[in-house]
Amino acid sequence: MTRRKKIYEGKAKILYEGPEPGTLIQYFKDDTTAFDAKKKAVLEGKGVINNRISEYVMTRLNSIGIQNHFIRRLNLREQLIREVEIIPLEVVCRNIAAGSLSTRFGLPEGQPLPRSIIEFYYKDDKLHDPMVAEEHITAFNWASTQEIDDMMALTLRVNDFLTGMFGAVGITLVDFKIEYGRIWEGDFARVILADEISPDSCRLWDSATNEKLDKDRFRRDLGNVIESYTEVARRLGIMKEMPTVIQGGLH
Amino acid sequence: MTRRKKIYEGKAKILYEGPEPGTLIQYFKDDTTAFDAKKKAVLEGKGVINNRISEYVMTRLNSIGIQNHFIRRLNLREQLIREVEIIPLEVVCRNIAAGSLSTRFGLPEGQPLPRSIIEFYYKDDKLHDPMVAEEHITAFNWASTQEIDDMMALTLRVNDFLTGMFGAVGITLVDFKIEYGRIWEGDFARVILADEISPDSCRLWDSATNEKLDKDRFRRDLGNVIESYTEVARRLGIMKEMPTVIQGGLH
Repeated sequence: MTRRKKIYEGKAKILYEGPEPGTLIQYFKDDTTAFDAKKKAVLEGKGVINNRISEYVMTRLNSIGIQNHFIRRLNLREQLIREVEIIPLEVVCRNIAAGSLSTRFGLPEGQPLPRSIIEFYYKDDKLHDPMVAEEHITAFNWASTQEIDDMMALTLRVNDFLTGMFGAVGITLVDFKIEYGRIWEGDFARVILADEISPDSCRLWDSATNEKLDKDRFRRDLGNVIESYTEVARRLGIMKEMPTVIQGGLH
Repeated sequence: MTRRKKIYEGKAKILYEGPEPGTLIQYFKDDTTAFDAKKKAVLEGKGVINNRISEYVMTRLNSIGIQNHFIRRLNLREQLIREVEIIPLEVVCRNIAAGSLSTRFGLPEGQPLPRSIIEFYYKDDKLHDPMVAEEHITAFNWASTQEIDDMMALTLRVNDFLTGMFGAVGITLVDFKIEYGRIWEGDFARVILADEISPDSCRLWDSATNEKLDKDRFRRDLGNVIESYTEVARRLGIMKEMPTVIQGGLH
Protein backbone atom coordinates (compact mmCIF):
# COMPACT_ATOMS: atom_id res chain seq x y z
CA MET A 1 0.00 0.00 0.00
CA THR A 2 1.42 3.38 -0.92
CA ARG A 3 2.04 5.83 1.86
CA ARG A 4 -0.85 8.24 2.10
CA LYS A 5 -0.56 11.92 2.80
CA LYS A 6 -1.57 12.83 6.33
CA ILE A 7 -3.66 15.99 6.31
CA TYR A 8 -4.29 16.40 10.02
CA GLU A 9 -3.81 14.44 13.22
CA GLY A 10 -6.03 15.17 16.20
CA LYS A 11 -6.28 13.57 19.61
CA ALA A 12 -8.59 10.73 18.54
CA LYS A 13 -8.61 10.81 14.74
CA ILE A 14 -6.32 11.19 11.75
CA LEU A 15 -7.34 12.61 8.38
CA TYR A 16 -5.59 11.32 5.25
CA GLU A 17 -5.89 12.52 1.70
CA GLY A 18 -8.80 10.73 0.02
CA PRO A 19 -8.89 8.83 -3.28
CA GLU A 20 -10.58 11.72 -5.12
CA PRO A 21 -10.44 15.51 -4.78
CA GLY A 22 -12.87 16.72 -2.15
CA THR A 23 -12.63 13.51 -0.12
CA LEU A 24 -10.64 12.50 2.94
CA ILE A 25 -10.13 9.31 4.88
CA GLN A 26 -11.00 9.58 8.56
CA TYR A 27 -9.06 7.13 10.72
CA PHE A 28 -10.31 6.41 14.27
CA LYS A 29 -7.51 5.96 16.80
CA ASP A 30 -7.73 4.07 20.09
CA ASP A 31 -6.12 7.06 21.81
CA THR A 32 -8.33 8.66 24.41
CA THR A 33 -7.69 11.98 26.08
CA ALA A 34 -9.49 14.18 28.56
CA PHE A 35 -8.95 17.48 30.39
CA ASP A 36 -7.02 19.16 27.54
CA ALA A 37 -5.05 15.93 26.97
CA LYS A 38 -3.66 16.05 30.51
CA LYS A 39 -5.16 12.56 30.92
CA LYS A 40 -4.34 10.03 28.22
CA ALA A 41 -4.78 6.34 27.52
CA VAL A 42 -4.98 3.85 24.67
CA LEU A 43 -8.26 1.94 24.88
CA GLU A 44 -7.86 -1.03 22.59
CA GLY A 45 -10.68 -1.30 20.09
CA LYS A 46 -12.24 2.10 20.81
CA GLY A 47 -11.52 3.36 17.30
CA VAL A 48 -13.22 0.33 15.79
CA ILE A 49 -16.39 0.85 17.82
CA ASN A 50 -16.55 4.60 17.23
CA ASN A 51 -16.06 4.12 13.50
CA ARG A 52 -19.05 1.76 13.46
CA ILE A 53 -21.30 3.85 15.71
CA SER A 54 -20.50 7.04 13.80
CA GLU A 55 -21.21 5.28 10.49
CA TYR A 56 -24.54 4.09 11.86
CA VAL A 57 -25.61 7.51 13.14
CA MET A 58 -24.36 9.56 10.19
CA THR A 59 -26.05 7.23 7.70
CA ARG A 60 -29.36 7.59 9.49
CA LEU A 61 -29.02 11.37 9.85
CA ASN A 62 -28.37 11.58 6.13
CA SER A 63 -31.53 9.57 5.47
CA ILE A 64 -33.62 12.20 7.28
CA GLY A 65 -32.01 15.00 5.28
CA ILE A 66 -29.34 16.10 7.74
CA GLN A 67 -26.40 16.40 5.38
CA ASN A 68 -23.08 15.29 6.77
CA HIS A 69 -19.56 14.51 5.69
CA PHE A 70 -19.89 10.69 5.84
CA ILE A 71 -19.67 8.85 2.49
CA ARG A 72 -19.00 5.21 3.43
CA ARG A 73 -17.04 3.07 5.83
CA LEU A 74 -13.88 1.62 4.29
CA ASN A 75 -12.69 -0.84 6.92
CA LEU A 76 -12.58 -1.42 10.68
CA ARG A 77 -11.01 1.92 11.49
CA GLU A 78 -11.58 4.13 8.48
CA GLN A 79 -14.33 5.92 6.70
CA LEU A 80 -14.41 7.96 3.53
CA ILE A 81 -15.71 11.47 4.14
CA ARG A 82 -16.25 14.70 2.25
CA GLU A 83 -13.59 17.33 2.78
CA VAL A 84 -15.10 20.35 4.48
CA GLU A 85 -13.81 23.69 5.72
CA ILE A 86 -14.14 23.08 9.44
CA ILE A 87 -15.89 25.84 11.43
CA PRO A 88 -13.69 26.28 14.53
CA LEU A 89 -16.53 25.72 16.99
CA GLU A 90 -17.64 22.82 19.13
CA VAL A 91 -21.42 22.85 19.28
CA VAL A 92 -22.75 21.30 22.48
CA CYS A 93 -26.41 20.43 23.00
CA ARG A 94 -27.55 19.64 26.53
CA ASN A 95 -30.80 18.09 27.77
CA ILE A 96 -29.80 17.28 31.33
CA ALA A 97 -27.29 19.09 33.57
CA ALA A 98 -23.88 17.39 33.65
CA GLY A 99 -20.18 18.18 33.30
CA SER A 100 -19.12 21.80 32.97
CA LEU A 101 -22.69 23.11 32.87
CA SER A 102 -23.36 21.57 36.30
CA THR A 103 -20.21 23.19 37.64
CA ARG A 104 -20.78 26.55 35.98
CA PHE A 105 -24.34 27.03 37.26
CA GLY A 106 -24.22 24.91 40.41
CA LEU A 107 -26.85 22.49 39.09
CA PRO A 108 -26.83 18.90 40.36
CA GLU A 109 -25.76 16.43 37.71
CA GLY A 110 -28.85 14.69 36.37
CA GLN A 111 -31.20 17.65 36.78
CA PRO A 112 -33.29 18.03 33.61
CA LEU A 113 -32.83 21.45 32.01
CA PRO A 114 -35.85 23.72 31.47
CA ARG A 115 -35.25 23.13 27.76
CA SER A 116 -32.41 21.91 25.54
CA ILE A 117 -29.53 24.39 25.60
CA ILE A 118 -27.05 24.83 22.75
CA GLU A 119 -23.58 26.11 23.58
CA PHE A 120 -20.64 27.07 21.38
CA TYR A 121 -17.00 26.60 22.33
CA TYR A 122 -14.09 28.03 20.37
CA LYS A 123 -11.82 25.18 19.27
CA ASP A 124 -8.38 26.14 20.55
CA ASP A 125 -6.48 23.75 22.81
CA LYS A 126 -4.07 26.46 23.96
CA LEU A 127 -7.03 28.56 25.16
CA HIS A 128 -8.78 25.45 26.57
CA ASP A 129 -11.73 25.72 24.17
CA PRO A 130 -13.44 28.70 25.85
CA MET A 131 -17.21 28.99 25.74
CA VAL A 132 -18.32 31.79 23.43
CA ALA A 133 -21.48 33.68 22.59
CA GLU A 134 -22.84 34.65 19.17
CA GLU A 135 -21.27 38.06 19.69
CA HIS A 136 -17.76 36.56 19.73
CA ILE A 137 -18.48 34.20 16.83
CA THR A 138 -19.65 36.98 14.55
CA ALA A 139 -17.18 39.65 15.74
CA PHE A 140 -14.18 37.37 15.17
CA ASN A 141 -15.73 36.04 11.96
CA TRP A 142 -15.64 32.36 12.94
CA ALA A 143 -19.12 31.95 11.44
CA SER A 144 -21.85 34.21 10.09
CA THR A 145 -25.18 34.88 11.76
CA GLN A 146 -26.84 32.72 9.10
CA GLU A 147 -24.39 29.88 9.76
CA ILE A 148 -25.03 30.11 13.52
CA ASP A 149 -28.77 29.90 12.85
CA ASP A 150 -28.22 26.91 10.53
CA MET A 151 -26.01 25.14 13.09
CA MET A 152 -28.56 25.72 15.86
CA ALA A 153 -31.46 24.44 13.75
CA LEU A 154 -29.48 21.38 12.62
CA THR A 155 -28.28 20.68 16.15
CA LEU A 156 -31.85 20.68 17.46
CA ARG A 157 -32.84 18.22 14.70
CA VAL A 158 -29.86 15.99 15.54
CA ASN A 159 -30.87 16.18 19.20
CA ASP A 160 -34.44 15.11 18.41
CA PHE A 161 -33.24 12.23 16.26
CA LEU A 162 -30.57 11.00 18.69
CA THR A 163 -32.91 11.32 21.68
CA GLY A 164 -35.40 9.11 19.85
CA MET A 165 -32.78 6.66 18.62
CA PHE A 166 -31.03 6.17 21.95
CA GLY A 167 -34.27 6.33 23.93
CA ALA A 168 -35.62 3.38 21.92
CA VAL A 169 -32.77 1.19 23.21
CA GLY A 170 -32.94 2.31 26.84
CA ILE A 171 -30.27 5.01 26.70
CA THR A 172 -30.80 8.61 27.84
CA LEU A 173 -29.06 11.26 25.74
CA VAL A 174 -27.76 13.71 28.35
CA ASP A 175 -25.73 15.92 25.98
CA PHE A 176 -23.50 15.72 22.93
CA LYS A 177 -20.86 17.67 21.02
CA ILE A 178 -20.79 18.05 17.26
CA GLU A 179 -18.83 20.05 14.73
CA TYR A 180 -19.78 21.57 11.43
CA GLY A 181 -17.97 22.40 8.23
CA ARG A 182 -18.60 24.35 5.06
CA ILE A 183 -18.92 22.92 1.59
CA TRP A 184 -18.54 25.51 -1.13
CA GLU A 185 -20.98 25.44 -4.02
CA GLY A 186 -19.70 28.30 -6.15
CA ASP A 187 -19.83 31.37 -3.93
CA PHE A 188 -22.31 29.78 -1.56
CA ALA A 189 -21.15 27.84 1.50
CA ARG A 190 -23.47 25.19 2.86
CA VAL A 191 -23.03 24.10 6.49
CA ILE A 192 -22.98 20.34 6.98
CA LEU A 193 -22.38 18.10 9.97
CA ALA A 194 -18.83 16.76 10.29
CA ASP A 195 -16.58 15.03 12.86
CA GLU A 196 -18.09 12.00 14.63
CA ILE A 197 -20.99 11.01 16.85
CA SER A 198 -19.96 8.33 19.35
CA PRO A 199 -19.69 7.65 23.10
CA ASP A 200 -16.60 9.88 22.95
CA SER A 201 -18.77 12.85 22.02
CA CYS A 202 -22.10 12.06 23.76
CA ARG A 203 -23.10 11.61 27.39
CA LEU A 204 -25.21 8.45 27.39
CA TRP A 205 -26.82 7.04 30.52
CA ASP A 206 -28.61 3.76 30.89
CA SER A 207 -32.23 4.91 31.23
CA ALA A 208 -33.05 2.38 33.97
CA THR A 209 -29.97 2.71 36.18
CA ASN A 210 -28.37 6.04 35.09
CA GLU A 211 -25.14 4.10 34.64
CA LYS A 212 -22.76 6.03 32.40
CA LEU A 213 -22.01 4.41 29.02
CA ASP A 214 -19.71 7.10 27.64
CA LYS A 215 -16.35 8.83 27.93
CA ASP A 216 -17.11 9.96 31.50
CA ARG A 217 -16.16 6.38 32.47
CA PHE A 218 -12.65 7.28 31.33
CA ARG A 219 -12.65 10.86 32.64
CA ARG A 220 -13.77 9.72 36.09
CA ASP A 221 -11.89 6.41 36.28
CA LEU A 222 -15.08 4.35 36.45
CA GLY A 223 -13.57 1.43 34.53
CA ASN A 224 -15.17 -0.76 31.83
CA VAL A 225 -14.86 1.95 29.20
CA ILE A 226 -14.69 -0.33 26.18
CA GLU A 227 -17.34 -2.63 27.64
CA SER A 228 -19.70 0.36 27.89
CA TYR A 229 -18.99 1.59 24.36
CA THR A 230 -19.62 -1.96 23.13
CA GLU A 231 -22.89 -2.07 25.05
CA VAL A 232 -24.05 1.07 23.23
CA ALA A 233 -23.16 -0.53 19.87
CA ARG A 234 -24.80 -3.79 20.92
CA ARG A 235 -28.07 -2.10 21.86
CA LEU A 236 -28.11 -0.27 18.53
CA GLY A 237 -27.74 -3.65 16.83
CA ILE A 238 -24.38 -2.71 15.31
CA MET A 239 -21.94 -5.08 17.02
CA LYS A 240 -22.54 -8.16 19.11
CA GLU A 241 -19.27 -8.25 21.02
CA MET A 242 -16.14 -6.31 21.79
CA PRO A 243 -13.93 -5.93 18.74
CA THR A 244 -10.99 -8.27 18.32
CA VAL A 245 -8.34 -5.79 17.35
CA ILE A 246 -5.89 -6.82 14.68
CA GLN A 247 -2.73 -5.03 15.74
CA GLY A 248 -0.69 -3.26 13.09
CA GLY A 249 -1.36 -3.52 9.38
CA LEU A 250 -4.57 -1.57 9.71
CA HIS A 251 -4.57 2.16 9.34
CA MET B 1 -32.52 61.09 61.60
CA THR B 2 -34.69 58.02 61.82
CA ARG B 3 -33.12 54.69 61.06
CA ARG B 4 -33.85 53.73 57.47
CA LYS B 5 -34.64 50.26 56.31
CA LYS B 6 -31.75 48.66 54.48
CA ILE B 7 -33.00 46.80 51.42
CA TYR B 8 -29.74 45.41 50.12
CA GLU B 9 -26.03 45.75 50.75
CA GLY B 10 -23.58 44.95 47.98
CA LYS B 11 -19.82 45.22 47.77
CA ALA B 12 -19.73 48.91 46.81
CA LYS B 13 -23.27 50.19 47.40
CA ILE B 14 -26.15 50.02 49.86
CA LEU B 15 -29.80 50.39 48.94
CA TYR B 16 -32.18 51.90 51.51
CA GLU B 17 -35.93 52.26 51.40
CA GLY B 18 -36.82 55.49 49.61
CA PRO B 19 -39.12 58.32 50.73
CA GLU B 20 -41.94 57.18 48.45
CA PRO B 21 -43.10 53.79 47.15
CA GLY B 22 -41.16 52.81 44.05
CA THR B 23 -38.05 54.71 45.11
CA LEU B 24 -34.82 53.71 46.82
CA ILE B 25 -31.79 55.55 48.13
CA GLN B 26 -28.51 54.35 46.64
CA TYR B 27 -25.53 54.91 48.95
CA PHE B 28 -22.00 54.76 47.49
CA LYS B 29 -19.48 53.15 49.82
CA ASP B 30 -15.71 53.68 49.78
CA ASP B 31 -15.27 49.88 49.90
CA THR B 32 -13.52 48.48 46.88
CA THR B 33 -13.25 44.83 46.00
CA ALA B 34 -11.82 42.77 43.16
CA PHE B 35 -11.41 39.13 42.19
CA ASP B 36 -14.66 37.95 43.82
CA ALA B 37 -13.93 40.12 46.87
CA LYS B 38 -10.69 38.24 47.56
CA LYS B 39 -8.98 41.63 47.36
CA LYS B 40 -10.49 44.42 49.45
CA ALA B 41 -9.72 47.96 50.47
CA VAL B 42 -11.37 51.17 51.64
CA LEU B 43 -10.48 54.01 49.29
CA GLU B 44 -11.43 57.17 51.08
CA GLY B 45 -13.65 59.38 48.97
CA LYS B 46 -14.32 56.87 46.19
CA GLY B 47 -18.04 56.74 46.98
CA VAL B 48 -18.28 60.52 46.75
CA ILE B 49 -16.63 60.61 43.33
CA ASN B 50 -18.64 57.70 41.92
CA ASN B 51 -21.89 59.24 43.16
CA ARG B 52 -21.04 62.41 41.25
CA ILE B 53 -19.79 60.74 38.07
CA SER B 54 -22.78 58.39 37.97
CA GLU B 55 -25.15 61.34 38.49
CA TYR B 56 -23.48 63.18 35.63
CA VAL B 57 -23.61 60.24 33.21
CA MET B 58 -27.11 59.04 34.10
CA THR B 59 -28.53 62.56 33.78
CA ARG B 60 -27.03 62.92 30.32
CA LEU B 61 -28.17 59.46 29.22
CA ASN B 62 -31.68 60.33 30.34
CA SER B 63 -31.54 63.50 28.25
CA ILE B 64 -30.91 61.45 25.09
CA GLY B 65 -33.82 59.14 25.88
CA ILE B 66 -31.95 56.29 27.56
CA GLN B 67 -34.21 55.73 30.53
CA ASN B 68 -32.46 54.89 33.75
CA HIS B 69 -33.14 54.57 37.46
CA PHE B 70 -31.53 57.88 38.50
CA ILE B 71 -33.88 60.51 39.89
CA ARG B 72 -31.61 63.00 41.68
CA ARG B 73 -28.55 63.22 43.86
CA LEU B 74 -29.40 63.77 47.53
CA ASN B 75 -26.02 64.44 49.09
CA LEU B 76 -22.32 63.57 48.80
CA ARG B 77 -22.83 59.82 48.87
CA GLU B 78 -26.48 59.23 48.07
CA GLN B 79 -28.84 59.42 45.17
CA LEU B 80 -32.55 58.84 44.89
CA ILE B 81 -33.35 56.16 42.34
CA ARG B 82 -36.35 54.30 40.98
CA GLU B 83 -36.86 50.84 42.39
CA VAL B 84 -36.45 48.26 39.65
CA GLU B 85 -36.57 44.50 39.45
CA ILE B 86 -32.91 43.82 38.75
CA ILE B 87 -32.19 41.47 35.85
CA PRO B 88 -29.46 39.14 37.21
CA LEU B 89 -27.00 39.87 34.41
CA GLU B 90 -23.91 41.99 34.08
CA VAL B 91 -23.82 43.39 30.57
CA VAL B 92 -20.29 44.10 29.39
CA CYS B 93 -19.52 46.07 26.25
CA ARG B 94 -15.95 45.95 24.92
CA ASN B 95 -14.27 48.10 22.29
CA ILE B 96 -10.65 47.14 22.93
CA ALA B 97 -9.27 43.82 24.24
CA ALA B 98 -8.52 43.91 27.97
CA GLY B 99 -9.11 41.93 31.15
CA SER B 100 -10.79 38.54 30.89
CA LEU B 101 -11.42 38.85 27.14
CA SER B 102 -7.68 39.21 26.53
CA THR B 103 -7.03 36.14 28.65
CA ARG B 104 -9.87 34.09 27.18
CA PHE B 105 -8.91 34.61 23.54
CA GLY B 106 -5.18 35.25 23.90
CA LEU B 107 -5.50 38.80 22.58
CA PRO B 108 -2.94 41.40 23.66
CA GLU B 109 -4.42 44.04 25.94
CA GLY B 110 -4.99 47.19 23.93
CA GLN B 111 -5.79 45.45 20.63
CA PRO B 112 -8.87 47.06 19.08
CA LEU B 113 -11.67 44.53 18.55
CA PRO B 114 -13.08 43.98 15.03
CA ARG B 115 -16.26 45.55 16.38
CA SER B 116 -17.80 46.26 19.78
CA ILE B 117 -18.68 43.01 21.54
CA ILE B 118 -21.45 42.68 24.12
CA GLU B 119 -21.14 39.94 26.74
CA PHE B 120 -23.51 38.75 29.44
CA TYR B 121 -22.43 37.39 32.80
CA TYR B 122 -24.77 35.74 35.28
CA LYS B 123 -24.66 37.67 38.58
CA ASP B 124 -23.83 35.07 41.20
CA ASP B 125 -20.80 35.56 43.46
CA LYS B 126 -20.77 31.90 44.52
CA LEU B 127 -20.49 30.85 40.86
CA HIS B 128 -17.98 33.67 40.13
CA ASP B 129 -20.32 35.43 37.69
CA PRO B 130 -19.96 32.98 34.78
CA MET B 131 -20.21 34.24 31.22
CA VAL B 132 -23.44 33.12 29.59
CA ALA B 133 -24.97 33.04 26.13
CA GLU B 134 -28.52 33.96 25.07
CA GLU B 135 -29.34 30.25 25.23
CA HIS B 136 -28.69 30.15 28.99
CA ILE B 137 -30.45 33.47 29.62
CA THR B 138 -33.66 32.36 27.93
CA ALA B 139 -33.56 28.71 29.06
CA PHE B 140 -33.15 29.69 32.72
CA ASN B 141 -35.62 32.55 32.28
CA TRP B 142 -33.29 35.31 33.49
CA ALA B 143 -34.56 37.54 30.69
CA SER B 144 -36.71 37.16 27.59
CA THR B 145 -35.44 37.30 24.02
CA GLN B 146 -37.08 40.72 23.69
CA GLU B 147 -35.36 41.95 26.84
CA ILE B 148 -31.99 40.68 25.57
CA ASP B 149 -32.55 42.56 22.32
CA ASP B 150 -33.53 45.69 24.27
CA MET B 151 -30.46 45.44 26.51
CA MET B 152 -28.16 44.96 23.52
CA ALA B 153 -29.63 47.93 21.65
CA LEU B 154 -29.48 50.15 24.75
CA THR B 155 -25.94 49.04 25.54
CA LEU B 156 -24.77 49.97 22.04
CA ARG B 157 -26.38 53.40 22.45
CA VAL B 158 -24.71 53.84 25.86
CA ASN B 159 -21.42 52.79 24.26
CA ASP B 160 -21.76 55.38 21.51
CA PHE B 161 -22.61 58.09 23.99
CA LEU B 162 -19.88 57.25 26.50
CA THR B 163 -17.27 56.85 23.75
CA GLY B 164 -18.13 60.35 22.56
CA MET B 165 -18.29 61.82 26.03
CA PHE B 166 -15.02 60.38 27.30
CA GLY B 167 -13.29 60.82 23.94
CA ALA B 168 -14.02 64.56 24.10
CA VAL B 169 -11.96 64.85 27.29
CA GLY B 170 -9.05 62.70 26.15
CA ILE B 171 -10.19 59.39 27.64
CA THR B 172 -10.54 56.14 25.68
CA LEU B 173 -13.48 53.95 26.67
CA VAL B 174 -12.00 50.42 26.57
CA ASP B 175 -15.00 48.60 28.02
CA PHE B 176 -17.74 48.97 30.63
CA LYS B 177 -20.21 46.95 32.66
CA ILE B 178 -23.82 47.93 33.18
CA GLU B 179 -26.92 46.37 34.68
CA TYR B 180 -30.56 46.61 33.79
CA GLY B 181 -33.82 46.33 35.68
CA ARG B 182 -37.51 46.03 34.92
CA ILE B 183 -40.16 48.60 35.69
CA TRP B 184 -43.65 47.22 35.53
CA GLU B 185 -46.33 49.25 33.79
CA GLY B 186 -49.37 47.07 34.31
CA ASP B 187 -48.52 43.72 32.71
CA PHE B 188 -45.75 45.21 30.63
CA ALA B 189 -42.17 45.33 31.88
CA ARG B 190 -39.90 48.01 30.49
CA VAL B 191 -36.14 47.49 30.70
CA ILE B 192 -34.23 50.48 32.01
CA LEU B 193 -30.60 51.09 32.89
CA ALA B 194 -29.75 50.74 36.59
CA ASP B 195 -26.70 50.41 38.85
CA GLU B 196 -23.91 52.94 38.26
CA ILE B 197 -21.50 54.14 35.60
CA SER B 198 -18.15 55.12 37.11
CA PRO B 199 -14.43 54.28 37.00
CA ASP B 200 -15.40 51.21 39.07
CA SER B 201 -17.42 49.86 36.14
CA CYS B 202 -15.54 51.23 33.10
CA ARG B 203 -12.02 50.72 31.77
CA LEU B 204 -10.83 54.23 30.97
CA TRP B 205 -7.42 54.96 29.48
CA ASP B 206 -5.82 58.34 28.95
CA SER B 207 -6.00 58.66 25.16
CA ALA B 208 -2.51 60.15 24.88
CA THR B 209 -0.56 57.88 27.24
CA ASN B 210 -2.84 54.81 27.68
CA GLU B 211 -2.47 55.37 31.42
CA LYS B 212 -5.25 53.57 33.27
CA LEU B 213 -7.73 55.84 35.08
CA ASP B 214 -10.02 53.15 36.47
CA LYS B 215 -10.40 50.26 38.89
CA ASP B 216 -7.56 48.33 37.22
CA ARG B 217 -5.28 50.67 39.20
CA PHE B 218 -6.64 48.92 42.31
CA ARG B 219 -6.81 45.41 40.80
CA ARG B 220 -3.21 45.62 39.63
CA ASP B 221 -1.73 47.62 42.53
CA LEU B 222 -0.81 50.56 40.30
CA GLY B 223 -1.42 53.12 43.04
CA ASN B 224 -3.08 56.56 42.78
CA VAL B 225 -6.55 55.05 42.51
CA ILE B 226 -8.45 57.99 43.98
CA GLU B 227 -6.26 60.46 42.14
CA SER B 228 -7.20 58.80 38.85
CA TYR B 229 -10.93 58.69 39.62
CA THR B 230 -10.69 62.38 40.54
CA GLU B 231 -8.91 63.08 37.26
CA VAL B 232 -11.81 61.52 35.35
CA ALA B 233 -14.29 63.69 37.29
CA ARG B 234 -12.08 66.75 36.78
CA ARG B 235 -11.89 66.28 33.01
CA LEU B 236 -15.66 65.90 32.85
CA GLY B 237 -15.93 69.23 34.68
CA ILE B 238 -17.65 67.65 37.67
CA MET B 239 -15.15 68.09 40.49
CA LYS B 240 -12.02 70.20 40.71
CA GLU B 241 -10.23 68.32 43.45
CA MET B 242 -10.23 65.17 45.52
CA PRO B 243 -13.16 65.09 47.91
CA THR B 244 -12.61 66.01 51.52
CA VAL B 245 -14.46 63.23 53.19
CA ILE B 246 -16.51 64.00 56.23
CA GLN B 247 -16.19 60.88 58.32
CA GLY B 248 -19.32 59.45 59.93
CA GLY B 249 -22.61 61.25 60.07
CA LEU B 250 -23.16 60.86 56.36
CA HIS B 251 -24.93 57.84 55.04
